[in-house]
Amino acid sequence: MDTREVLTSFWAAMQDNDWERAAAHLAEDAQTDWPCTGERIVGRTAYAAIQADYPTETRRWTFDIHRLLADGDTGVSEVTVTDGDQSARVVAFSTVSDGLITHQVEYWPSAYEPPPERAHLVQRIEPVP
Amino acid sequence: MDTREVLTSFWAAMQDNDWERAAAHLAEDAQTDWPCTGERIVGRTAYAAIQADYPTETRRWTFDIHRLLADGDTGVSEVTVTDGDQSARVVAFSTVSDGLITHQVEYWPSAYEPPPERAHLVQRIEPVP
Repeated sequence: MDTREVLTSFWAAMQDNDWERAAAHLAEDAQTDWPCTGERIVGRTAYAAIQADYPTETRRWTFDIHRLLADGDTGVSEVTVTDGDQSARVVAFSTVSDGLITHQVEYWPSAYEPPPERAHLVQRIEPVP
Repeated sequence: MDTREVLTSFWAAMQDNDWERAAAHLAEDAQTDWPCTGERIVGRTAYAAIQADYPTETRRWTFDIHRLLADGDTGVSEVTVTDGDQSARVVAFSTVSDGLITHQVEYWPSAYEPPPERAHLVQRIEPVP
């Protein structure tokens, strides 16, 4: 499978909320980095556990893939994740080797207030959830 | 110029702190969106003005391009921006048409604290600046 196929299959498993199947797309020693919180998840078991343990009332997550780019062994996904109550955006860079994700850098950007001094130069749009 | 060439040239102009030359890579009616702050910049003049007006003591910005992916008419850049005092990470999705950027979505993720309940499943790494 090429980069795009691996990532498409990974997100299909996530969409099914099948965390074990999603994690099986990772290499056994894969590093998943979350730079916003300064966290690294190593391997498949911890990755699946974090998804399964994430607090949710509805217990049903959907993944809306806005963009999926592939360039050689690297792909990037721009995705909105929601359980109906809470939502978040993730931008994930994935390095693929031999059909497995060996390294994934997931940015989970949060919304914050813009500085007022440039208000005359911008329009307001909906921020990330 | 293809997508990669346009973005390489755009970042070279940014690295030169030549905001007018950088903005000339945008289409005249280009939309630059900052989803973290819910802001949209329309056109070249406002884009160059925001760069020029951004508060800085050193008045010299450098752009460290970690990754630049291109897939058809869309590219994505992962960049650390610093003036020596302050630093930030940006992940920018750029849509290119006829050698110009028609739409750019710039995520400027900020660091925030991870929830303590998953601390047993992660290692700590350096967060975004």
